[in-house]
Amino acid sequence: MNAAIITIGDELLIGQIVNSNAAFIAEACTAIGCTIVALSTIGDDAQALIDELDRLRAQAPVLILTGGLGPTHDDITKAVLTSYFHDTLVEDHEWLEHLRAWMKMRGRELSDRNAQQAMLPSTCRKLDNPLGTAPGMLFDRDGIVVISMPGVPDEMKGLMRQHVIPYLQRMLEERNESSWEYRTLYSTGIPEAYLADRIGDPATFLHGCSLAFLPNAFGVRMRIGAYGRTQEERAHELDRIEAYLQERAGRWIYGTGSTSLAMRVGELLKEQGGTVSVAESCTGGMLGAAFTDVAGSSAYFEGGILSYSNAVKVRELGVSAADIATFGAVSDVVARQMCDGVRARFGTTYGIGITGVAGPDGGTEEKPVGTVWIGIAGPTGTATKQHRFGPDRRNNRERSVAAALAMLWRMMQGVDDDV
Amino acid sequence: MNAAIITIGDELLIGQIVNSNAAFIAEACTAIGCTIVALSTIGDDAQALIDELDRLRAQAPVLILTGGLGPTHDDITKAVLTSYFHDTLVEDHEWLEHLRAWMKMRGRELSDRNAQQAMLPSTCRKLDNPLGTAPGMLFDRDGIVVISMPGVPDEMKGLMRQHVIPYLQRMLEERNESSWEYRTLYSTGIPEAYLADRIGDPATFLHGCSLAFLPNAFGVRMRIGAYGRTQEERAHELDRIEAYLQERAGRWIYGTGSTSLAMRVGELLKEQGGTVSVAESCTGGMLGAAFTDVAGSSAYFEGGILSYSNAVKVRELGVSAADIATFGAVSDVVARQMCDGVRARFGTTYGIGITGVAGPDGGTEEKPVGTVWIGIAGPTGTATKQHRFGPDRRNNRERSVAAALAMLWRMMQGVDDDV
Repeated sequence: MNAAIITIGDELLIGQIVNSNAAFIAEACTAIGCTIVALSTIGDDAQALIDELDRLRAQAPVLILTGGLGPTHDDITKAVLTSYFHDTLVEDHEWLEHLRAWMKMRGRELSDRNAQQAMLPSTCRKLDNPLGTAPGMLFDRDGIVVISMPGVPDEMKGLMRQHVIPYLQRMLEERNESSWEYRTLYSTGIPEAYLADRIGDPATFLHGCSLAFLPNAFGVRMRIGAYGRTQEERAHELDRIEAYLQERAGRWIYGTGSTSLAMRVGELLKEQGGTVSVAESCTGGMLGAAFTDVAGSSAYFEGGILSYSNAVKVRELGVSAADIATFGAVSDVVARQMCDGVRARFGTTYGIGITGVAGPDGGTEEKPVGTVWIGIAGPTGTATKQHRFGPDRRNNRERSVAAALAMLWRMMQGVDDDV
Repeated sequence: MNAAIITIGDELLIGQIVNSNAAFIAEACTAIGCTIVALSTIGDDAQALIDELDRLRAQAPVLILTGGLGPTHDDITKAVLTSYFHDTLVEDHEWLEHLRAWMKMRGRELSDRNAQQAMLPSTCRKLDNPLGTAPGMLFDRDGIVVISMPGVPDEMKGLMRQHVIPYLQRMLEERNESSWEYRTLYSTGIPEAYLADRIGDPATFLHGCSLAFLPNAFGVRMRIGAYGRTQEERAHELDRIEAYLQERAGRWIYGTGSTSLAMRVGELLKEQGGTVSVAESCTGGMLGAAFTDVAGSSAYFEGGILSYSNAVKVRELGVSAADIATFGAVSDVVARQMCDGVRARFGTTYGIGITGVAGPDGGTEEKPVGTVWIGIAGPTGTATKQHRFGPDRRNNRERSVAAALAMLWRMMQGVDDDV
């Protein structure tokens, strides 16, 4: 079953915000067997929305919209859908009560402007939105399903989980069509072209399945797709391709399904009963944030020291001030002392230290912007590695986190042959 | 001058990655006066790309593409553009040398697969890509400009800065058309509907300008748009609207232009010669990451303690174990001791402590998931505030960071009247 996503808002067209809603919706729909055929972003423009509804309904029986449901003048979605379906707005008493209670809880009166949000098209199904003041709307009219949700991410996510996904699952069951199913293998430590060469010509083993290579800061993900009517058929094909890829590149594959290096490392730490602490300079907390992004990470993540200044490196981690003076804060010896220091102080199995020149300033000929030293202290000793990422501050910080997690994973695996 | 963006890749349609490239390109184009009229995402599908080129060239003389330029079989962009413009591939010797040098620097031989990336359409202008193995391509053919860039974010960003933006600026100068220009005012501490009521009916003051309200975790941004031929005309209108909004809502506006709460707080700290340190529990480093995301933050950000476990709260921050036992780790008293503790230990002007139940587990009736206590210790004393965000772990962590920065900003301003 095909579906298309329309995300609405000038802020998206001018690039003021990143469209994370589209990714969330696409992933949730794909996971249950919907095929997203198009993803379109338009401004707060009634005619543009009408044009996209007309264009995309020809490609998909389900159109999922976000945005334009707020209480202000630039929110056009409800008005457009009402006229698109030749409908009229009627007051939803239940929702009006919800709005009153919502405002009361926040010690406010219900303003006329917010009360407008209880006016809903008469033929739409209201989708409860406990987190916000605008409900979702679902139209099943004229052979097309149009689902409209607020653009606020956590409100949209709640509506997806509670209403939209269950509704689409029922549609899929009724239609009983073949669909695509995907599985992702996550690799690190080997570049895309080398991975592709090891795996060989996809034509020789795909046989109707699909394979995509997706490089990012953490490595290269391989996404396998299988097409079939039953979950069993698809799983059988996915297993076949996965086995083929594992046989040729398993050494670099750290996980499969929906995982991340932080999750995988966390699983290994749990299995081994290990713990970890961090000493961060140029990443300023991003590595700790990556560890604790994983629910349940308190089982192995103890904490750490953000040693952004040299004074903190010396005072909190026992880094030698003389070594900083001699070798610089971005050096093998300082990275080593940072990870040894935090490991000793926090009494963890592993200690990780990151020190680098994130940029844009602070680069030298010898240590240009993008130079990062990562150290990991563990039961078998301490290892350090230098990286040269590049000119972009954000990219340098993200890649430093990825490289630290990959280095810990390889150390815990006993794998350490980057290509 | 209108432009449209086409981002290519199955990984986008299935929601495996968030489309940050589209936002970066749209923002960069909008900043110089281009109007992005459409933003379309398609899969690794040759026919879909041809259809979008045909559809969007009718809406915009400039089409900007990313993705599908990698070395593997699923990368279709170069082949499609070559045939779309009835062109042929020829070897670019210069690029072949770049590839050899690139591989040599990494101690590798040039594989046949990578050598393919030196085969370029004969009529395109090659856009140097020092960070990668695929160059950008610019076609100016048949009354349309098509620009194709790799999907790897830092490669795309380099190409935009070095080649695409300067090229578009020359086009704009030659065309000398009226265009939109935008300015954003950032507010925090007042909900969208209340802000809108304070400002009143936009029709009474916009007079051809545009105004959009953009709520996010940090507050509500107000984006003003002005249309005109010269930069002076547009600036004059933007100034007029900004003055109007500042007069009515200035108390909640923390910045304008392209800023963030972290940047604004950093500016204030620099002005006041102040410093800050953090003690993070549920955010696990995200607040430190937000501070250090700002280039030059070493001038005021000293560092901090990631006290994810209670043991670390007690040992590193001097939090009372008895108080944790009595009141719980997520409590007014513990937040207070965390910020007081880190401020004293790091000798900073301000100390910030965050402790909360991020979820999904750990919630109780009294302290449900989403309960977060934030404390800030400063020269005038220590303040704490409780928040109730919601059920989503990531959202709780992001909002905790936003709330802590907003609280520090208000404290430094002497403003503390949330609506």
